Amino acid sequence: TDSFDPAEHPHKRLNVLTQEWVLVSPHRAKRPWQGQNELVTAPTLPSHDPHCYLCPGNVRISGERNPDYGHTLVFENDFAALQKHIPDSPDNTDPLFQVQAERGEAHVVCFSPDHSKSLPELALADIERLIDTWIEQFNGLRSRYEWVQIFENKGAIMGCSQPHPHGQIWANSSVPTLPAKESTEQQAYWAEHEKSLLLDYAHKESAAGERTVVENADWIVVVPYWAAWPFETLLLAKHPISHFHQLSDGQRASLAVILKKLTVRYDNLFATSFPYSMGWHGAPTSLLDDPAWQLHAHFYPPLLRSAAVKKFMVGYEMLAEPQRDLTPEQAAYQLQQAGDTYYKDAQQ
Amino acid sequence: TDSFDPAEHPHKRLNVLTQEWVLVSPHRAKRPWQGQNELVTAPTLPSHDPHCYLCPGNVRISGERNPDYGHTLVFENDFAALQKHIPDSPDNTDPLFQVQAERGEAHVVCFSPDHSKSLPELALADIERLIDTWIEQFNGLRSRYEWVQIFENKGAIMGCSQPHPHGQIWANSSVPTLPAKESTEQQAYWAEHEKSLLLDYAHKESAAGERTVVENADWIVVVPYWAAWPFETLLLAKHPISHFHQLSDGQRASLAVILKKLTVRYDNLFATSFPYSMGWHGAPTSLLDDPAWQLHAHFYPPLLRSAAVKKFMVGYEMLAEPQRDLTPEQAAYQLQQAGDTYYKDAQQ
Ligand SMILES: O=P(O)(O)O[C@H]1O[C@H](CO)[C@@H](O)[C@H](O)[C@H]1O
Ligand SMILES: O=P(O)(O)O[C@H]1O[C@H](CO)[C@@H](O)[C@H](O)[C@H]1O
Repeated sequence: TDSFDPAEHPHKRLNVLTQEWVLVSPHRAKRPWQGQNELVTAPTLPSHDPHCYLCPGNVRISGERNPDYGHTLVFENDFAALQKHIPDSPDNTDPLFQVQAERGEAHVVCFSPDHSKSLPELALADIERLIDTWIEQFNGLRSRYEWVQIFENKGAIMGCSQPHPHGQIWANSSVPTLPAKESTEQQAYWAEHEKSLLLDYAHKESAAGERTVVENADWIVVVPYWAAWPFETLLLAKHPISHFHQLSDGQRASLAVILKKLTVRYDNLFATSFPYSMGWHGAPTSLLDDPAWQLHAHFYPPLLRSAAVKKFMVGYEMLAEPQRDLTPEQAAYQLQQAGDTYYKDAQQ
Repeated sequence: TDSFDPAEHPHKRLNVLTQEWVLVSPHRAKRPWQGQNELVTAPTLPSHDPHCYLCPGNVRISGERNPDYGHTLVFENDFAALQKHIPDSPDNTDPLFQVQAERGEAHVVCFSPDHSKSLPELALADIERLIDTWIEQFNGLRSRYEWVQIFENKGAIMGCSQPHPHGQIWANSSVPTLPAKESTEQQAYWAEHEKSLLLDYAHKESAAGERTVVENADWIVVVPYWAAWPFETLLLAKHPISHFHQLSDGQRASLAVILKKLTVRYDNLFATSFPYSMGWHGAPTSLLDDPAWQLHAHFYPPLLRSAAVKKFMVGYEMLAEPQRDLTPEQAAYQLQQAGDTYYKDAQQ
């Protein structure tokens, strides 16, 4: 054919949050797979595991005993990548060797006392308690730190040593590289349009529909136009919200609903406990109520074709540019088809 | 202690090629490992495998038969991520949805007819033939494309479906994201200092020595000051060379020597066929003889503690900033200690 077809012809798309391009090679999804398969084991987990250091009543490596908690539990990471008190680094004199001491702290957040339940399997009321915990943590840490990174690594393939549902929070004294780019781009868009980049984007995606995975009155989840990972999604607020401290009660409740719907679809897609890294981005402390900043979450799942076959971000991706093998629209369609009934329930 | 110690205190270091920071958490290398281990199998491979589509005389998926080649073999990738002829994309009208058609082609480069030999096991003369092949490919493709990305994915953990020693070349019509940043930073440094950023850096590292892995008259390999991957290295020219077309015969020969020495040390480190993605960066076609640009190679190996334990670049790294658990100086020291005698020979 003579005219450009994004579902057929290789092209690049611009990530407007980072000003970085992604190479899309839609025809490439057809190649046969000969690479490494991941081990897929789905053991039936007990609700309480006496050897799990996150379960209620058990003793952690530090020697501390977990309380008999009923909803969420937060404690300081016993092997934190950041430390609260460190000396200042010396002044930088050489532009090629730039160093900066970094203060911070790291917390672990157990999502539930139940060892066996991942996010999509939690009751809505429990997901609301998790959201409340995130908000409390954010409000506590933002007074001491410029950046509070709330995230979850899920699945062994994502380096998560623990099936017990949990996430992490790393807070530190400067804005890290990726959110710093998002800050720059959101502020530049505001300077030019006097509107929020991500609010404009959310409304345009809501109107288009072709990349929408789930949506309600307050939130929309899309496979972003510039997604790099095959089933990457972006969870966006549909109203002006710079960070967690601005959420209304209604928005917390509707957030629980959409988080459950999204993670159910993820698990349904390949009938597996879907691995990913997810995390929250919102205004840094010094820009807390800046209307250019919109609260959002990124989900970066590694799987490509099945529970056993992941996308390798290697070679070209590490040296040149991220590359994907199916279009974001095709990925969104598959997630739309994945349905609202949890696959384990459907199988019974 | 009261004074800042980079081997003890968390800090950030700036990658001067991208202006992005890396979080270094040296104390964290002490945490116990409870995560996923990689499967380590070291099968003895035959020199010729009748089922390998890269071995001489065998038939590929396309139906073509490989010639009975003696050194290197180059052919077009049967499932290329890029295509030579595609229609132009429509004009972009919305700043939030930017698309650009991308022309290109992808080649596969077999390093040797011997199925069983990875780079460190090849004779120096064979590595020189590989370098000649890279140069030929570069010179052929640069006339048609702005960017020629030469790279190798090695090992199943890096998505490499094939033990037969080989790499890839993807050429395309625009400079990809990562080299575009390197172009910007090298030109900015030249504008300010009238010197090459990477040449200055190579000389300073050579003088310091503490991050040097191997060095000869023409080349130096360091664990860069800002390395993100545990044993990441940067191979730098010590003389002004913008890309492969400027290499002298002597520099090709000394490059073969240093490539062999580096990959021998990598394999020795954990007594395994060390996985990595590596690739070459040099001046893009439109800046071909720009003195700001220096030819270099990046090696990004995923292993952290042993042949079975890799570094997971997940959660914080995907959402915020790369983080590492040992200092670049500690990694360089381990690679220095890894020695020049290939571990398989030493064991005999
Ligand atoms: O072309 P291959 O070796 O099949 O594919 C491998 O390398 C490519 C380029 O780095 C990646 O895009 C793929 O994800 C990876 O599996
Ligand atoms: O803290 P964990 O879960 O042991 O560690 C995991 O998450 C961290 C933060 O994303 C990463 O730096 C580690 O590489 C990963 O193994």
